[in-house]
Amino acid sequence: MDSYKIALLGLGNVGGAVARLLASTRDECAVRAGRSIEVTRIVVQDASRPRELPVDLPGDPEICEDPDKAIEDPQIDAIVELVGGTDLPCQWIRRALENGKDVVTANKAVLAVHGEELFQVAADRGRNLYYEASVAAAVPILQVLQQGIPAGPVDRLTGILNGTCNFILSRMEHLSFDDSVAEAQSAGLAEADPTLDINGMDSAHKLALLARILLGCAVPIEKLRIEGIVGLTSYDIEFGKQHDLHLKLIGMLRRNGEGTSIGVMPCFLPSSHPLSSVRDEDNAVLLEAEPFGSLVLQGKGAGGMPTAGSVVADILRAARGDAIIYPVSGPIEKIMDPGESPARHYLRLEVPDRPGVLARLAGALASQEVGIAALDQPDNVDSVNHQVPIRILTHSVATTDLDRALSNLDSDLRAISEPIRIRIEE
Amino acid sequence: MDSYKIALLGLGNVGGAVARLLASTRDECAVRAGRSIEVTRIVVQDASRPRELPVDLPGDPEICEDPDKAIEDPQIDAIVELVGGTDLPCQWIRRALENGKDVVTANKAVLAVHGEELFQVAADRGRNLYYEASVAAAVPILQVLQQGIPAGPVDRLTGILNGTCNFILSRMEHLSFDDSVAEAQSAGLAEADPTLDINGMDSAHKLALLARILLGCAVPIEKLRIEGIVGLTSYDIEFGKQHDLHLKLIGMLRRNGEGTSIGVMPCFLPSSHPLSSVRDEDNAVLLEAEPFGSLVLQGKGAGGMPTAGSVVADILRAARGDAIIYPVSGPIEKIMDPGESPARHYLRLEVPDRPGVLARLAGALASQEVGIAALDQPDNVDSVNHQVPIRILTHSVATTDLDRALSNLDSDLRAISEPIRIRIEE
Repeated sequence: MDSYKIALLGLGNVGGAVARLLASTRDECAVRAGRSIEVTRIVVQDASRPRELPVDLPGDPEICEDPDKAIEDPQIDAIVELVGGTDLPCQWIRRALENGKDVVTANKAVLAVHGEELFQVAADRGRNLYYEASVAAAVPILQVLQQGIPAGPVDRLTGILNGTCNFILSRMEHLSFDDSVAEAQSAGLAEADPTLDINGMDSAHKLALLARILLGCAVPIEKLRIEGIVGLTSYDIEFGKQHDLHLKLIGMLRRNGEGTSIGVMPCFLPSSHPLSSVRDEDNAVLLEAEPFGSLVLQGKGAGGMPTAGSVVADILRAARGDAIIYPVSGPIEKIMDPGESPARHYLRLEVPDRPGVLARLAGALASQEVGIAALDQPDNVDSVNHQVPIRILTHSVATTDLDRALSNLDSDLRAISEPIRIRIEE
Repeated sequence: MDSYKIALLGLGNVGGAVARLLASTRDECAVRAGRSIEVTRIVVQDASRPRELPVDLPGDPEICEDPDKAIEDPQIDAIVELVGGTDLPCQWIRRALENGKDVVTANKAVLAVHGEELFQVAADRGRNLYYEASVAAAVPILQVLQQGIPAGPVDRLTGILNGTCNFILSRMEHLSFDDSVAEAQSAGLAEADPTLDINGMDSAHKLALLARILLGCAVPIEKLRIEGIVGLTSYDIEFGKQHDLHLKLIGMLRRNGEGTSIGVMPCFLPSSHPLSSVRDEDNAVLLEAEPFGSLVLQGKGAGGMPTAGSVVADILRAARGDAIIYPVSGPIEKIMDPGESPARHYLRLEVPDRPGVLARLAGALASQEVGIAALDQPDNVDSVNHQVPIRILTHSVATTDLDRALSNLDSDLRAISEPIRIRIEE
C-alpha cells in the first residue's frame, strides 16, 4: 500500500515531540498502520530559523510557512494541527476536511468552540477528525469512551483534566500560589499567560468534549458552572490535610433522571477517593457505570511527549482508516448545575479581628441553615488590615444555598476579600 | 444497513449479563454500531431448563443446545463464545472464522493455548477475533495497547490481572487463606476448583496475551516463571503492613537491551506504587514508556457484568467492522526470568524452636551473600512440631540467587514446610 503522507502544522513543544516519536518508532508505526507514515511537509512560523529534524524522520519534509501549501497539496493524506488557537485552526481544519484529508488535532479550544461545525463537515465529507490528544494528553480517554466500553450506562464522570492546575496545587503544599505558577511555567507546563488553565476554562473545554460523547449531544460551554483555582492558598490545602482531604480541580458530570449536572470546580477529595492521590501534571478520569463498576485511567496530562503519544496513536488510526464515532447530534439534554446537589463544604473567611466575631459568624450561618462541623481560627492576624482567617467545615448543604447564605452575611462579618468556598466530593 | 446478527454460546454468569446489557442499551448500541444488534441464537447446555430472557433483548433468539446450529447458520454475522475451556471452543472459533463470521470471546485460556492458530485463521480469512473481555474484564487494556497509545516505547508492564486472587489477598488481612477462598467462591468470583486462579496460571494466560501485543511475537506460556498465592498467610500480609508493603499477585514484563523478562509472582508493593491500593476484585495495569510516562488503567477484573461490558464493546466494534490489529508474527524475543534481577525480598521460614537457630540462620544467609535488613520472630510457637516462624527482610538480591541460598541451608535450619519468599517490586 502507498505510504500515508502527513503534514505537521506546528513544530513547537508538541510538534517536535511528534517528529521525534515518529522517527524513533517508525518500524512499529509501519507495522501498525499497515503502511509507512511519511511527514512530507512541516508548516512553521519562521522557516528561516535553523532547526534539526530527527535523522530517522520518514518523508524528507519540506519546511514552509504557509499552511495552504499543506492544505491544498493533493499528495497529503492528513493534516496534523498542533498550532493552537481557535479561529485560524478552524479554517485550516475545515478546508483540509473539505479537500478530502483526515485531520488530527491536539487543540481542545478549537473543538470546544467550533466542534459542532467541524464534526459536521467531517461527517458530510466522510473524513475523520481525530482529537485524542486534546483531552488529558497521554490518557486515551476518548478512545475508551468511544470504543472501549459501552458508554451508555456511564452515569458519573469525575476528572482531573488540567495538568497545569494539578501541578500548581501539588506545589502549593510547600509554595505560595504565585511561586507555584512560576514553577509550572519554568517546567514548561504553563503558558506565559496561564489564565485559561487557572480559571478552569481549559478543564471546561475538555469536560465538554467528554460530555458530548457520553450524552450524544452538543454541550454548550456557556451553560456550565466553571470555577478555577485563583484565590486558593496553602492555608486551604493545609486545613484539608488535617481532615484527610486533597485539593483538586475537578470536572464532573452526574446524570440522574431529571438531567445532567456538568461543571468544573475546585474540590476536596477524601483519601479513599480514587483520584485523591493524582499528583503533579497527571490527569485522571473516573468513570462510574452502575452495571459494570468504576474504571480509572491515569497518566500524564501535559507536556510535549505525553501529548505526542496520543497524536501518533491518532495518526496510526487515521492511516489505518479506523472510523471515529461521532457523537449523535441528539436533542440537547437538560444541563444542570452540580452545585445544586448537597455536599460538605470548606469555607475560609477573612473577618475583622474583634472579639465575638467568630461566635456571631457561626450564629449567622446557622440561621441560614448552614450547619458547622468544625471550625478553627489560626493564630494569624493581618496586622495592617486587622483581619483574621476563619476556616470552617460545614455539614451537607448545596453549594448554591451556601453561596446565598454567604452573600446574606451582615456587612461587618463579610470578608474584605471574597470568602473561599470548596466543595467536598465524597 | 441490515441488522448485525449474533449468536451467544453460553448463557451463564457472563452470557446472561451480556443479554441484559444488550437489552438495556439497545438504542445506544444501534447508534454506535450504525445498525441494530440482534441476538438470533443462544446455545446452552440444557435448552429445556426454563429461563427468562430480558424483555427488550433484540432478535427474538432461538435457544438450542448444538453450537453447530449457530456456527453453520449463514444468517449469523458473529459468534460470541462465553463457554470457557480450550479444545472445544478452539474448534468452534476456528470453524466460525472459516465460515466467514467474526468471533468475540472472553476466554483467555483458549487464546493462550491456541491463539497463534486462531489469529492466523482470522487473518487468512479476513475476519476479526475480538478478545477484550479475556484480559482484566472491564478494563479496556487490549484496545489501549493496540490502538490508544504507540505501544513500541512501552518497556515495562505491571499488572494485577486476576480479580479472584486480589480479592483473596484483600480478605486475608482479616481471614485465613481457606476462609478467603471460600468467601471468593460465595461471592461468585472463584470457581469451585480455584486452582487456575490461585496457582497463577490465569494471570499468566492474560500476561502472555498482553506481552504478545507489546512484543509483536508469540509468547509461549511454558517459558514464563509462574508462581501463585498458595502458601501465603495472614502472617506475611501483617509483616508487610508493618513495613508499608502491600501483597499483590503481579504479572510483569520488563524490556531491556538483552531481552524481555516476563513472569507472574506474588510481590510486595510499597504504598507509593500506583498499584498498591488496588483492592478486592479490581484489576489494574501500569504501563511505563520512557518518552511519555506512565499510564494506569484500573477497573473490575471479575464478575459477570464487568466482563459483559467489554464483550458488548467488542460486539459493537465487530458490527462496525473495526479491524483488530493482530500482533506481528515476528521472531520470538529472548524471554528471561524476572527473578534474575535484584530486588529486596521478604522471607518466612518455620524453624525448629531451639536456642541459637535464629543466629545460625542469619549467619548461613550472610555466608551466601544474602544481606538481612530486618528480622523478627513472632511469639508463636507451634507446640506440636516445636517450630517457630522467622520473618526476614533482605537487602537487594536476585530471586534466583536467594532461592539457591535457601536450598543450600543446612538441613536443621530448613523449614519442614517450604520457605515463603516474596519479591518486593519498587
